[in-house]
Amino acid sequence: MERISSFLKKRKSEIEEILPTFVSSLQAPETIKESMVYSLNAGGKRIRPALVLAMLHSYGRNEKIGFPIACAIEMIHTYSLIHDDLPCMDDDDLRRGKPTNHKVFGEAMAVLAGDGLLTESFRIVAEQEELPFSKRIQLIIELAKAAGVEGMVGGQVLDIEGEGQALTLEELKSIHEHKTGKLLEVSMVAGAILSDAPNQEIQVIRKIAYHLGIAFQIRDDILDIEGEEEKIGKPVGSDTLNEKTTYPSLLTMEGAKTKLVEHVETAKQYLHTLSINTELLEELCDLIASRDH
Amino acid sequence: MERISSFLKKRKSEIEEILPTFVSSLQAPETIKESMVYSLNAGGKRIRPALVLAMLHSYGRNEKIGFPIACAIEMIHTYSLIHDDLPCMDDDDLRRGKPTNHKVFGEAMAVLAGDGLLTESFRIVAEQEELPFSKRIQLIIELAKAAGVEGMVGGQVLDIEGEGQALTLEELKSIHEHKTGKLLEVSMVAGAILSDAPNQEIQVIRKIAYHLGIAFQIRDDILDIEGEEEKIGKPVGSDTLNEKTTYPSLLTMEGAKTKLVEHVETAKQYLHTLSINTELLEELCDLIASRDH
Repeated sequence: MERISSFLKKRKSEIEEILPTFVSSLQAPETIKESMVYSLNAGGKRIRPALVLAMLHSYGRNEKIGFPIACAIEMIHTYSLIHDDLPCMDDDDLRRGKPTNHKVFGEAMAVLAGDGLLTESFRIVAEQEELPFSKRIQLIIELAKAAGVEGMVGGQVLDIEGEGQALTLEELKSIHEHKTGKLLEVSMVAGAILSDAPNQEIQVIRKIAYHLGIAFQIRDDILDIEGEEEKIGKPVGSDTLNEKTTYPSLLTMEGAKTKLVEHVETAKQYLHTLSINTELLEELCDLIASRDH
Repeated sequence: MERISSFLKKRKSEIEEILPTFVSSLQAPETIKESMVYSLNAGGKRIRPALVLAMLHSYGRNEKIGFPIACAIEMIHTYSLIHDDLPCMDDDDLRRGKPTNHKVFGEAMAVLAGDGLLTESFRIVAEQEELPFSKRIQLIIELAKAAGVEGMVGGQVLDIEGEGQALTLEELKSIHEHKTGKLLEVSMVAGAILSDAPNQEIQVIRKIAYHLGIAFQIRDDILDIEGEEEKIGKPVGSDTLNEKTTYPSLLTMEGAKTKLVEHVETAKQYLHTLSINTELLEELCDLIASRDH
């Protein structure tokens, strides 16, 4: 998996270079720009932007056209983390070892920084002059569906409502499908739209993203039990401590691992029906199944 | 001013009829839809949607095409009120005599309802199939600029930073220009874009909106001192009590009233340079100068 590792590493550093420039160039009070840039610069795997670029790469397109959209999606992801960390939501003081946005800038500024990132992300997509108007509209609709109440925001609501309750496997899947799955899906779909992928292939890509999203979450749950604290960036066993329903808690560890392999294999099967070079995306599937952080 | 009064009354009831349908039709958890609809149904003057429709009316266009955009702008306004009322912001328990969103649904749901309204508002504009793609993109860029950190969100930051400080007239104007002015401006501009107004007229409309926005705010400040509690829906004298810098506090009541007339007159002068029927908008200017709530 040499190839995917170096691909992700290179794209991560490219994305991290341009990501803050979309905010720093705005004519706005310095405090809120600082607050937005602070969270944009707080690290992470940058998996969503990498998925946009990986799709373009696999369709043999120039990845350059994907960078602004990739950054817009990362801005939406970042806004959701800022709001999730608020005292009235998960009340987290640390994220990836750094103080959360509201611990540094105060709650009011954190709410506004999130609002600002969400709003500016739509502006970035709308202002991509090298894309035809129709494509920009298609991307904005996809993004709004994935980020809004039918997607990520709705998933967050399901998550809050499910707190402290014993969830069924279907309920657990629905939370993750919306809360994290939809934004992963739109990352791949956006890359496909930018690659002029036929509609029928975009439908297949949605299925691939669905299975990869579940696999990603199962691996997350497994790492919470079997991972190393320094690598996963949070205490091992926190899900168990918080009595959260997880794939291992519902299926046993063995069952969760079997399910993980099944979802990765299904994703790969769909992948092989596409008219693209699947090498990179196959390695990505394997990486999701075996990642240690 | 019979005409503008009945125009506003009729449009308010039409807007209020369709506004909640944009949320109730979404495939999302019932709780968040309830929370969003609660705030959308909480009343108000609906001045922003009315401005969209008044522009279409004045250009002799069919107002029907303006309703979805008018509702999208009212959704952005509503999201901003929900977030503004949060304990970490203005900490308000009541708005227009009704419990604020977070008092009814909890803080977490209020944050998410605001996030949801903002996101869905962009989707509504993007999905207006009867508009050409280019027009939808133009509207989305205008909306994002007006609502984001260069507009409303930035104004909210300036407002927070100015709290408890003696502001200059320039600072006071800048806060209002961004916090409330930009969304009023985009309401008029959106109506003009939908009316196929030439670019040069849109620039004039921005100036009209700028002066009307200031006039609107000066009248607000005056009503806080001279208004009737039942009509303005909040205690008289609350600005003075909170030691807020206002137009009367900087200019004296007489000076503020003179300034109000000046801004309304300037708006009217620009209005007369447009190729439209100005009757309705002139009455609107007068109404803003003399309104009692």
